[in-house]
Amino acid sequence: MKNTFGSSVCLTIFGESHGPAIGAVLDGLCAGLPVDEAFIARQMDKRRARGDGLSTGRTEADQVRLLSGVLNGRTTGTAIALMIENKAQRSGDYAKTQDLLRPGHADFTAYAKYGGWQDSRGGGHFSGRITAPLVAAGAICQQVLAAKGITIATHIRAAAGVEDLPFAADEPALLARQAAAVSAASPEQLALIDPAREESMRAAIRAAGAEGDSVGGILETAVLGLPAGVGEPFFDSVESVLSHLLFSIPAVKGVEFGLGFGFAGLRGSQANDPFRMEAGRVVTATNHNGGVNGGIANGMPLVFRTAVKPTPSIYKPQQTVDYVAKRDAQLQIQGRHDPCIVHRAAVVQTCAAALGLLDLLTTCEGTRSQKED
Amino acid sequence: MKNTFGSSVCLTIFGESHGPAIGAVLDGLCAGLPVDEAFIARQMDKRRARGDGLSTGRTEADQVRLLSGVLNGRTTGTAIALMIENKAQRSGDYAKTQDLLRPGHADFTAYAKYGGWQDSRGGGHFSGRITAPLVAAGAICQQVLAAKGITIATHIRAAAGVEDLPFAADEPALLARQAAAVSAASPEQLALIDPAREESMRAAIRAAGAEGDSVGGILETAVLGLPAGVGEPFFDSVESVLSHLLFSIPAVKGVEFGLGFGFAGLRGSQANDPFRMEAGRVVTATNHNGGVNGGIANGMPLVFRTAVKPTPSIYKPQQTVDYVAKRDAQLQIQGRHDPCIVHRAAVVQTCAAALGLLDLLTTCEGTRSQKED
Amino acid sequence: MKNTFGSSVCLTIFGESHGPAIGAVLDGLCAGLPVDEAFIARQMDKRRARGDGLSTGRTEADQVRLLSGVLNGRTTGTAIALMIENKAQRSGDYAKTQDLLRPGHADFTAYAKYGGWQDSRGGGHFSGRITAPLVAAGAICQQVLAAKGITIATHIRAAAGVEDLPFAADEPALLARQAAAVSAASPEQLALIDPAREESMRAAIRAAGAEGDSVGGILETAVLGLPAGVGEPFFDSVESVLSHLLFSIPAVKGVEFGLGFGFAGLRGSQANDPFRMEAGRVVTATNHNGGVNGGIANGMPLVFRTAVKPTPSIYKPQQTVDYVAKRDAQLQIQGRHDPCIVHRAAVVQTCAAALGLLDLLTTCEGTRSQKED
Amino acid sequence: MKNTFGSSVCLTIFGESHGPAIGAVLDGLCAGLPVDEAFIARQMDKRRARGDGLSTGRTEADQVRLLSGVLNGRTTGTAIALMIENKAQRSGDYAKTQDLLRPGHADFTAYAKYGGWQDSRGGGHFSGRITAPLVAAGAICQQVLAAKGITIATHIRAAAGVEDLPFAADEPALLARQAAAVSAASPEQLALIDPAREESMRAAIRAAGAEGDSVGGILETAVLGLPAGVGEPFFDSVESVLSHLLFSIPAVKGVEFGLGFGFAGLRGSQANDPFRMEAGRVVTATNHNGGVNGGIANGMPLVFRTAVKPTPSIYKPQQTVDYVAKRDAQLQIQGRHDPCIVHRAAVVQTCAAALGLLDLLTTCEGTRSQKED
Repeated sequence: MKNTFGSSVCLTIFGESHGPAIGAVLDGLCAGLPVDEAFIARQMDKRRARGDGLSTGRTEADQVRLLSGVLNGRTTGTAIALMIENKAQRSGDYAKTQDLLRPGHADFTAYAKYGGWQDSRGGGHFSGRITAPLVAAGAICQQVLAAKGITIATHIRAAAGVEDLPFAADEPALLARQAAAVSAASPEQLALIDPAREESMRAAIRAAGAEGDSVGGILETAVLGLPAGVGEPFFDSVESVLSHLLFSIPAVKGVEFGLGFGFAGLRGSQANDPFRMEAGRVVTATNHNGGVNGGIANGMPLVFRTAVKPTPSIYKPQQTVDYVAKRDAQLQIQGRHDPCIVHRAAVVQTCAAALGLLDLLTTCEGTRSQKED
Repeated sequence: MKNTFGSSVCLTIFGESHGPAIGAVLDGLCAGLPVDEAFIARQMDKRRARGDGLSTGRTEADQVRLLSGVLNGRTTGTAIALMIENKAQRSGDYAKTQDLLRPGHADFTAYAKYGGWQDSRGGGHFSGRITAPLVAAGAICQQVLAAKGITIATHIRAAAGVEDLPFAADEPALLARQAAAVSAASPEQLALIDPAREESMRAAIRAAGAEGDSVGGILETAVLGLPAGVGEPFFDSVESVLSHLLFSIPAVKGVEFGLGFGFAGLRGSQANDPFRMEAGRVVTATNHNGGVNGGIANGMPLVFRTAVKPTPSIYKPQQTVDYVAKRDAQLQIQGRHDPCIVHRAAVVQTCAAALGLLDLLTTCEGTRSQKED
Repeated sequence: MKNTFGSSVCLTIFGESHGPAIGAVLDGLCAGLPVDEAFIARQMDKRRARGDGLSTGRTEADQVRLLSGVLNGRTTGTAIALMIENKAQRSGDYAKTQDLLRPGHADFTAYAKYGGWQDSRGGGHFSGRITAPLVAAGAICQQVLAAKGITIATHIRAAAGVEDLPFAADEPALLARQAAAVSAASPEQLALIDPAREESMRAAIRAAGAEGDSVGGILETAVLGLPAGVGEPFFDSVESVLSHLLFSIPAVKGVEFGLGFGFAGLRGSQANDPFRMEAGRVVTATNHNGGVNGGIANGMPLVFRTAVKPTPSIYKPQQTVDYVAKRDAQLQIQGRHDPCIVHRAAVVQTCAAALGLLDLLTTCEGTRSQKED
Repeated sequence: MKNTFGSSVCLTIFGESHGPAIGAVLDGLCAGLPVDEAFIARQMDKRRARGDGLSTGRTEADQVRLLSGVLNGRTTGTAIALMIENKAQRSGDYAKTQDLLRPGHADFTAYAKYGGWQDSRGGGHFSGRITAPLVAAGAICQQVLAAKGITIATHIRAAAGVEDLPFAADEPALLARQAAAVSAASPEQLALIDPAREESMRAAIRAAGAEGDSVGGILETAVLGLPAGVGEPFFDSVESVLSHLLFSIPAVKGVEFGLGFGFAGLRGSQANDPFRMEAGRVVTATNHNGGVNGGIANGMPLVFRTAVKPTPSIYKPQQTVDYVAKRDAQLQIQGRHDPCIVHRAAVVQTCAAALGLLDLLTTCEGTRSQKED
């Protein structure tokens, strides 16, 4: 199933960058759950380009229209369809260079896959724009999780070479404060634990943009309140399901949980998280495993990071191929592009995680174990 | 769907470490494909513990019995069930410490999930032993892929702090020689590009084991011959599907494609892979993206790495919790354990990748585009 | 997955009768397939109420808007989203009786399932209106099948006690002529093999409507050109997949293939279809099995029938329950209803079959057997 | 997914009639549910051929071996694999006639689908023998349902032209007694409401068998205790999911719920089931809809019937085709065959229904509606 994700809570995504509309169908939610459209709009606003030198000049209102499944601010139990009209298409920008494959983009692979029938205007289905319905649907999932005491926060761990403080995975109380601060950031702000670093990060991104170049970064997410026991053994582990979603986000090239690649150089005695009792609950003294043991949530904060590659659309001249003429060519990209998408992708990562966790949680609730005799 | 993976080619895995048998059902293969049981046995042998100081003393013959779907060395088109009897169970080893949660293991999360009803003997369903049927099924997938000219090789990029040479992602011809050499390694050898490093790697692993400790590492995989166009947009990207499988392998805590986390500090002009024509084919001059653009294979070698954490079972005393008494306790692990599983996991990674890629390839073949008019 | 059907070609349906819009997402089609919007409109027209005494006075234009996945009259290979705005809602008609459960309808079961949160206006998600996006999507599937030489025709085998001639399942040439004639019927006509019976069928339906009552009937479908070998063994047999879809259509209460329930009283010697060679092809001398053996298409015409119950909305007073007051009550239905839906459901059945068969065919093409050596 | 059924509770079936073993993997059950192997054995016994003139002389012990997922008589929460060794294969019986397509069987369609690679010994994967693991898995599902107060009973409504009394769908108390009596029938008895008809039914079957012929029949199932609200709207209605499974059973050619095809000739005023309050519960005065409204269970007994065609294997000479020589031929079937499979299929139908209903119920429990404010 190509554009559908999920076992219990399913999301189907559709649309092309310059088509009439993009959207999604979210299915499998209980009836009676509150859906606050203002919250959805606020999450959409965090993903929106602001024309502030950090992101593309294509600024879409991205108004989300709920077509079904919600009545009087509550889920009805049936599929929630949502739609976002495309308004600011300027396909003309792409016409001059449309046969030239943009390096780092899906132009060539779309040709290879769809044989020339794909809608290639503005990247078509491969545009970062397709993350907009994921955010809208994930915003609904976030609300459902929040009602169960589960919150998710993503900050820019690094961008353009400027680092933020890391999430304090081993100190749940501090981590909770960090997460709350990050979530409270306004759509105009960069989501950082240490706001003092915002200006230097902005400056570094703008500097690259000024050179016609782009930058990458790292996004770090913390999930608080996830109950122990969520996740399925083997194929549908928490890590499997989340990474599946995270790698769906354009530009994500790496995913790690807890210490991640840092585990490679450690010994077991350094890596293991000792258990201890705390207020009648089993907790771990450290949280190197990022809240997951054997693929199942252990009740500690979930912590993971993604590597986001630099936006492939740059204004520097690039060597490429004219796909129609089948010969080497030079490309000078036109149009409106982001020198950095890391900051816009933060809310996408939060929303993708919300979808994945709600799916796993719902599966879990359908198969609650019998009480021991 | 908890223990089933796949859209077009599906694998269902079952079994517990100390139950009567473990196994799998592989469904969705064409009829008439050759299945060589000797090749399966050889792959199983690569995963087998050898009692050589690098892995557990539990040495299972791991004989794979094909129950259905194969006749006279060919697939029949129906589901292939395979079974491996468990023979060397020594559940007694676990009895003394069964209420003590082993740090880094799924003991606690299995309790949280299954309420005490789980089969916890030897780790039950969470044992690394459950990767044996994945290897058997993946070995069949490897044969199907090989018949289409697609080969997969995994080497130990690092273990116990000792590094191997990296795969030469940017140089397909050299990479092909490296991959061939790695695949040709005997089950007794470590899968390394540079065999000269084998002894120091063995020594480093044994040294940790001698201290009752364990080590982690990094596995790197290259896939050659994958045609451009394989993979689905958004949710079922090559990266999404492979990471889903890779994170299913116990102890994997990170996955990255191409430069992976190395992308975070680069600029677009450094990260993009320029296209060029080569012998009438579109290729990229570098391969930073590890063979994937926009989630779809671009025809260059696929290259990815996983972070494997140190085996959690160590002989050093550890702080933990007695789950029944609900109090802190000290654990001294008994039984037979691996000081390192990185080398045994290499073939698991190859086989997981084979399954994922065959699934994507089969989906692709069912929806081949119409010829352009 | 609640509102998604399919393995290889998937359809997700959404919407409520009185919500802003209904629609569907159709995924899994190849790129480059022709999509004729005029053909879709014509199929929609066949499902449309005409206010002619045979169907409800709610006449919707049912204009299908394609939001994605189609460009310049061809599929792009990505998900096709389509939307139909609801325009002629008159929710006021339902307000007076909204606590009174309509017998034969889903009012009570929706309450039981959704706890009162459902959108109950006009039947909500359980309205026959939800078949409109199925027709739109199925019309696309019909075009894809037609390009492969597979055609589907449904006629009204019986309605209001008036019978049409049966499809000549045993005589492929005659059946082909019958099917062509039925498919050529205009949207204003009843789909009948024998047009001479149209007037008496209309009269019988109108007579029931005039009494404030409704009628049921039988729909019979023939599929021509389906290649032998389509269908999966056991769970996804042709009969399983088609019946799954057919029973999704509101009011369908029975499905039978070939002789169906007529098999119960026969002996094997009467029931079996002897094979014979005809122009180098294996055919059956009779077609009692309706084109399916062992769940797989045998290359003969596929023939099946559904039982459609009388529209539950009748104007005669009915005994029921006031669900809010929890007491017995009498119901006098208001609003605009169909005395018969059999004739409108004919195209729905054709379109449902088109979806199911295209899904099976696509699965089949992905796993074409190897040539025999 | 070709041999897997289910959304929340999934069953994968494997095996060939003359291969080493047949079996199944049942996944998605809660941990801690009691599994009584004696009950499974008893259900298997009901499906077993007895060599009593009513069924084939191939009598298999059909001992079910549980390989995983059950420990100390309880589910562990992980996948339950079960295996039945094939012991009484006599492939030689088939050798003489193996190129001659048996009318009514899957011989030809298996060729068409698998291109000659299929295991055709004894019907291979298309043998009725493949229903044995379905019974074993369904027996586990039955136990889970029984613990929730849901029971299922199937009787032979008709066989060889001899009818049993019908289930009293409109009278729940009487129906409950009928269902209990039918379920209590020993494996040696025919499952009939009226035991006085057993001898004439046996005689009629034996008479057909004596002539080298076979007979068909009708199976009727009642489900008691299914709560209102189970089932999903549109695609996964109770009728859709059950019919999908029922048509998977070899020889089933028709499925109807409630009055089924009897609805076709009725008016809405005759067909609708009026609601009324009874002991504080909403019930229907009649049960023409067989316990389903709008695809969702309404709390009344579920009642459905299947048409079972006569066993295609008969000893009378039949016209057919030699598939290898590609010419017309005459077939004289050898081997051991059932003159009637209706009575053996009764428990298969019960078990299929148990699987389908448990799947729907589990989906339902994962998405329980919020309480109304």
